[in-house]
Amino acid sequence: MPENRAVIYKGPGHVEVEEVDYPTFELKDGPGVNPDNVGRQLPHAAILKVVATNICGSDQHMVRGRTTAPAGLALGHEITGEVVETGRDVEYIQTGDLVSVPFNIACGRCRNCKEGKTGICMYVNPDRPGSAYGYVDMGGWVGGQAEYALVPYADWNLLKFPDRDLAMAKIRDLAMLSDIFPTGFHGAVTAGVGPGSTVYIAGAGPVGLAAATSAFLLGAAVVIVADLQADRLAQARSFGCETIDVSQGSPTEQIEQILGEPEVDCAIDAVGFEARGHGSDSQTEHPATVLNATMDVTRAGGAVGIPGLYVTGDPGAADEAAKEGSLSVRLGLGWAKSLSFTTGQCPVMRYNRQLMMAILHDRVQIAKNVNATVVPLDQAADGYAEFDRGAARKYILDPHGMISS
Amino acid sequence: MPENRAVIYKGPGHVEVEEVDYPTFELKDGPGVNPDNVGRQLPHAAILKVVATNICGSDQHMVRGRTTAPAGLALGHEITGEVVETGRDVEYIQTGDLVSVPFNIACGRCRNCKEGKTGICMYVNPDRPGSAYGYVDMGGWVGGQAEYALVPYADWNLLKFPDRDLAMAKIRDLAMLSDIFPTGFHGAVTAGVGPGSTVYIAGAGPVGLAAATSAFLLGAAVVIVADLQADRLAQARSFGCETIDVSQGSPTEQIEQILGEPEVDCAIDAVGFEARGHGSDSQTEHPATVLNATMDVTRAGGAVGIPGLYVTGDPGAADEAAKEGSLSVRLGLGWAKSLSFTTGQCPVMRYNRQLMMAILHDRVQIAKNVNATVVPLDQAADGYAEFDRGAARKYILDPHGMISS
Amino acid sequence: MPENRAVIYKGPGHVEVEEVDYPTFELKDGPGVNPDNVGRQLPHAAILKVVATNICGSDQHMVRGRTTAPAGLALGHEITGEVVETGRDVEYIQTGDLVSVPFNIACGRCRNCKEGKTGICMYVNPDRPGSAYGYVDMGGWVGGQAEYALVPYADWNLLKFPDRDLAMAKIRDLAMLSDIFPTGFHGAVTAGVGPGSTVYIAGAGPVGLAAATSAFLLGAAVVIVADLQADRLAQARSFGCETIDVSQGSPTEQIEQILGEPEVDCAIDAVGFEARGHGSDSQTEHPATVLNATMDVTRAGGAVGIPGLYVTGDPGAADEAAKEGSLSVRLGLGWAKSLSFTTGQCPVMRYNRQLMMAILHDRVQIAKNVNATVVPLDQAADGYAEFDRGAARKYILDPHGMISS
Amino acid sequence: MPENRAVIYKGPGHVEVEEVDYPTFELKDGPGVNPDNVGRQLPHAAILKVVATNICGSDQHMVRGRTTAPAGLALGHEITGEVVETGRDVEYIQTGDLVSVPFNIACGRCRNCKEGKTGICMYVNPDRPGSAYGYVDMGGWVGGQAEYALVPYADWNLLKFPDRDLAMAKIRDLAMLSDIFPTGFHGAVTAGVGPGSTVYIAGAGPVGLAAATSAFLLGAAVVIVADLQADRLAQARSFGCETIDVSQGSPTEQIEQILGEPEVDCAIDAVGFEARGHGSDSQTEHPATVLNATMDVTRAGGAVGIPGLYVTGDPGAADEAAKEGSLSVRLGLGWAKSLSFTTGQCPVMRYNRQLMMAILHDRVQIAKNVNATVVPLDQAADGYAEFDRGAARKYILDPHGMISS
Repeated sequence: MPENRAVIYKGPGHVEVEEVDYPTFELKDGPGVNPDNVGRQLPHAAILKVVATNICGSDQHMVRGRTTAPAGLALGHEITGEVVETGRDVEYIQTGDLVSVPFNIACGRCRNCKEGKTGICMYVNPDRPGSAYGYVDMGGWVGGQAEYALVPYADWNLLKFPDRDLAMAKIRDLAMLSDIFPTGFHGAVTAGVGPGSTVYIAGAGPVGLAAATSAFLLGAAVVIVADLQADRLAQARSFGCETIDVSQGSPTEQIEQILGEPEVDCAIDAVGFEARGHGSDSQTEHPATVLNATMDVTRAGGAVGIPGLYVTGDPGAADEAAKEGSLSVRLGLGWAKSLSFTTGQCPVMRYNRQLMMAILHDRVQIAKNVNATVVPLDQAADGYAEFDRGAARKYILDPHGMISS
Repeated sequence: MPENRAVIYKGPGHVEVEEVDYPTFELKDGPGVNPDNVGRQLPHAAILKVVATNICGSDQHMVRGRTTAPAGLALGHEITGEVVETGRDVEYIQTGDLVSVPFNIACGRCRNCKEGKTGICMYVNPDRPGSAYGYVDMGGWVGGQAEYALVPYADWNLLKFPDRDLAMAKIRDLAMLSDIFPTGFHGAVTAGVGPGSTVYIAGAGPVGLAAATSAFLLGAAVVIVADLQADRLAQARSFGCETIDVSQGSPTEQIEQILGEPEVDCAIDAVGFEARGHGSDSQTEHPATVLNATMDVTRAGGAVGIPGLYVTGDPGAADEAAKEGSLSVRLGLGWAKSLSFTTGQCPVMRYNRQLMMAILHDRVQIAKNVNATVVPLDQAADGYAEFDRGAARKYILDPHGMISS
Repeated sequence: MPENRAVIYKGPGHVEVEEVDYPTFELKDGPGVNPDNVGRQLPHAAILKVVATNICGSDQHMVRGRTTAPAGLALGHEITGEVVETGRDVEYIQTGDLVSVPFNIACGRCRNCKEGKTGICMYVNPDRPGSAYGYVDMGGWVGGQAEYALVPYADWNLLKFPDRDLAMAKIRDLAMLSDIFPTGFHGAVTAGVGPGSTVYIAGAGPVGLAAATSAFLLGAAVVIVADLQADRLAQARSFGCETIDVSQGSPTEQIEQILGEPEVDCAIDAVGFEARGHGSDSQTEHPATVLNATMDVTRAGGAVGIPGLYVTGDPGAADEAAKEGSLSVRLGLGWAKSLSFTTGQCPVMRYNRQLMMAILHDRVQIAKNVNATVVPLDQAADGYAEFDRGAARKYILDPHGMISS
Repeated sequence: MPENRAVIYKGPGHVEVEEVDYPTFELKDGPGVNPDNVGRQLPHAAILKVVATNICGSDQHMVRGRTTAPAGLALGHEITGEVVETGRDVEYIQTGDLVSVPFNIACGRCRNCKEGKTGICMYVNPDRPGSAYGYVDMGGWVGGQAEYALVPYADWNLLKFPDRDLAMAKIRDLAMLSDIFPTGFHGAVTAGVGPGSTVYIAGAGPVGLAAATSAFLLGAAVVIVADLQADRLAQARSFGCETIDVSQGSPTEQIEQILGEPEVDCAIDAVGFEARGHGSDSQTEHPATVLNATMDVTRAGGAVGIPGLYVTGDPGAADEAAKEGSLSVRLGLGWAKSLSFTTGQCPVMRYNRQLMMAILHDRVQIAKNVNATVVPLDQAADGYAEFDRGAARKYILDPHGMISS
């Protein structure tokens, strides 16, 4: 059995790469593992040699200490790898397959999975529908920022790349299929983006840039990305987006300068609850600012996609309501404009095969657009720190040095 | 030219039936008429002898003094009538046609109308998309609780009943096509109701009961209606709904008793911003209570339809945020459950023909379900007062005594 | 190990109940088993004590000798039962569960299953996508008109009834969930049936009557059923359908008498390739008559759902083209009317849970509407013969005498 | 009143540019005008100075003598122009507006228009739903291959370009909005094309190339275009399509060479009833060849969009059935693969605004992709002749020399 090393959350602001157990076909006790999941047998699982595993903005919520994540938690839910072993009940996935792992763990056997709602699988997290690898309160499935990782229900969950050589040549792009590309795409789809749409995207982090990439893939006419940081906005401009610096004030006026009217067809909130204010409020957190701004900028009858995370518990919030996830929302304005809103985790499986096809046939350059940056697993802590400082990059950890530079 | 009489808003708590001008093919100045609409020529309009015109819960917001409606405003947006004259540009609607009038005025010529979004027509209200007859801040179109009323863009807006005798025999039901039946139906559709659904409806007023009727028409398995008033709940039970008295506390537990699980597939907020609290809070307004409760009771991945009105300005609200339409919404919970939300006026034209067919072929009994009660126009003030006291009735005004008792 | 008995196809016009092997967790060789499926291991399967198993019109194609079905084939794909044993890979389905089996066998692991297209699963039939129990050229899965039957991928395929006593009280209705109710419902959905629709259904056999039942559940205003046989039409009238006797000529004129116009919104072909002509042609097969008639009767812009079976090989057809499944279709007329058409097996899993809910909550009476008739397994041959003679009945075989009379 | 000149059908194989009446706000008698339309008053119309008007493949059906079009018919239904006069009931369209005219004439007042089905408007063609300018059996609306043309229901039908200078700079692209771009797009949408799709398009004429352009705009991964003519295939390759020469045989094998599997997700029939056979049959007409080939190449569960025209009467067809529009269709194969099919005229209004946005913001180059070629109106006859010989071009007539070369 090979050795294994993984990125471990050690406490607020602190991650380390440590030796960990090699995966087995049983979910063992450990930091953050739900007691009802301890001892769960996993004959349907596959073990992966991890080829690429990305740092996600939602990992940062934990590392910043904004959650109840326990020290010792193995992090990472954006996993791409090579199958090295399969459980006895795996039929179609085989050793040697190069695969993408949707970040949402799903059983393929519950009502929600049968309806394609794999983001809210009912059987993998004893606490509530929905789960993910290496994440607090998500059932305790071991994180995948590691050399080796285990994926349950492998036949259901894994997306096999059809050609290994072609896949390795595009591995930076394909690595985005585990989370941010489908997540951004889901934001765009639920915002109603289609050919000819004008689109406002709040947030130029990796999910926002993935949403922008998705909007173009869906045929959008104009994609406008808003953020507070200049280099992230420059990154957005690098692939054809218009940009808005919301530290300069509300986006409405700047949209009018771009489009000749102060509204867009579709809006995407790719920021979530750690939003800062716009204009002079931009130095402090105003958790509903971004969502409320989408109501201003979206034309009547439009839709708002909300891939940005809002949480039920936020101990670090500024007021009591926000600590429980209640925010002051301009519902009256939204209602007057007949807006609709879609929230929640992206059901990755709904989109990943199609997006893989778009990547493999050179229709989209997601890695370039999010400025994918490959670093060895050992430098994970640096990646976390730089990303936290707002680097306009998406960090891919490369545990086995398999990604050519 | 015949005389004309109409229901006029005189001030908070006060309406009267008064003589008014007979309609002409021009929008003249008057209380509440937008200056940019004054003098608007209406060769595309039809004049109706009003057969039935209902009192709506949203009229009550004005009459209670919760809005900036000016004294002198002619009320009424739920109109059914007989065409007595048509403008020169009307081609297909003819004198003698018996018709239903969608409460949302639409031009049939703007982008939104072409997309079927007649609730947010761009050309009829100079202030913002969306309009209605006899309503504050909606452009100033004259209300239809009157003997005669004018409908612009008659070919576009009017729904002709195919058989006059059959229509008069079912006129109480057909009168609900102008607003509450499509509005309740829109709530059900946007909540995702379909065959086999379990449905929670907050509010047993006319819109809530219309939503319940719609849910059954759409094939729902179980329809649960919640309210604070016993006789409204009794009305809901009269056509097969399960009921919940929210003055007894949050609905979750009662849902579990009914369904064996504490959640439903679909939820409809048919209350809006004048919501009272649940349980011990039920004596006072808590404007977000109903919406937040839908997040509790809707299963993960479900949808919430929000036909209940939320406003951008509510001078009578309890706190500053609510006065501007900002409410404390449990967004974190909604996000964790991957819920989606649809707000806004119902685009009546999208549904009224189909619902008319269901009425004419005896597939639905909307008048009975909402306890339609016919009163002469002269007794409008009594109808307003009784409805405001919570009568489990939907009042139809009968200006010409054409509805047989 | 208990004994087992099953309905066996012995040759054209001839079925018998014979002793057969008790199911095991391996697909063994036998009549009609695809060589590539022989020896397939089924640790994901469950063994059912069959409570109800229906005779289907598509079974009749085989028994009439219209296919290449081999003698010795165990028949039956409409199965409802109690789980008596589960394979080692089954996690959620348990012994004692009362369940409905979708007639289409699906793996829950291929691209099509992940997209909800369980009628064309890629991994269960080596010949082509799509499979069923006890059916020629469908992979060789053993038929379920038997005392005991095996269901592969049990967690994925089986629909568990939530309450055993309630389920047994409605078992005649629930037995229709394995095929004809979802199949008729799929026809209605793909024909665009919704509230207020006018619907034409060709064929008053069990699938046609299930489509009519579904149309009402979906809110249709008028449901018109056409057939050549008087007692089948009487059965349709028994639950509110209008009827047309196509032996009297083309349906257009009769539709006009019913509706006042010669067209409907939606049409469903519940007959398929063994269609006879209309009017004076009604004594002989005219395989495209029914489909072509739907083009006449469907209004421009409408849709045609085609649950009726059309085949790629029909050795008994009247002409060479029809023997290969090519029919003379009035494509020009369909195009001029902008019609759309949906063919194929119903993906049962897409609908069966919702329809179960409608049954359990008394919203639909499918057993009564199709005139469900329970007979002992031993009388299967009589059931086949009577059904073939056009009895207006749906036969349920009751292998263990568990259905109270 | 200015003079006017138009392209007139003189008889099989013969068109000429002749002087014609300047448009008036009444539909006057003339060749091909439906008697019930003679004298129709058009106060809702606008008169256009035609800026661009294209020759369409469906015009060729008439000019080839494959229809009952009368000599003297003014041709042309692809019209782009500048408004020079409006009727008294036009409210929003103004003199000076630069506009695109959807080829399907629609009233904006009937049930179908209200449902967005403008391709089958009920009130403009007395014979049947659906109409077009300058086309046989379509009501007799005067064709637009002319210096001046009249558009009824101008507020409803016309799409205004927001910026005149920008529009003139892209006028070759915008000219395709009247028909082929939306028509090809409708084919792609109804075939289910989306991000990552593999697409087969039969026919590399302008509609096929527009469908290919649309497929890319919708995010398709691979677009494969099939035709018999080498230079049309070269044109398809010029913007990234893969191509198949069906004179070399059935497309299945060539698809497998391109994709590694013999099937695509989506298929579009952009040929219609004048199809020739594949392989050795490619010298003669086989009207169902293309449609039947789509059944071979489309994967199970896929959809087929059919923008290619099929007709109810084809006097020049090879057999009696085809003369009435009945073709031998492989329905059995389609059914076994659970395919769906969408036929009919594209409802241009559903798509043209969005596609205009994509053009104006440089997201698509439709003129380049279809090899748009501008010729003076006087050279219309040459354009017809060259297009009939299979030139890989789309001819734009330029009546006023307004399009810079």
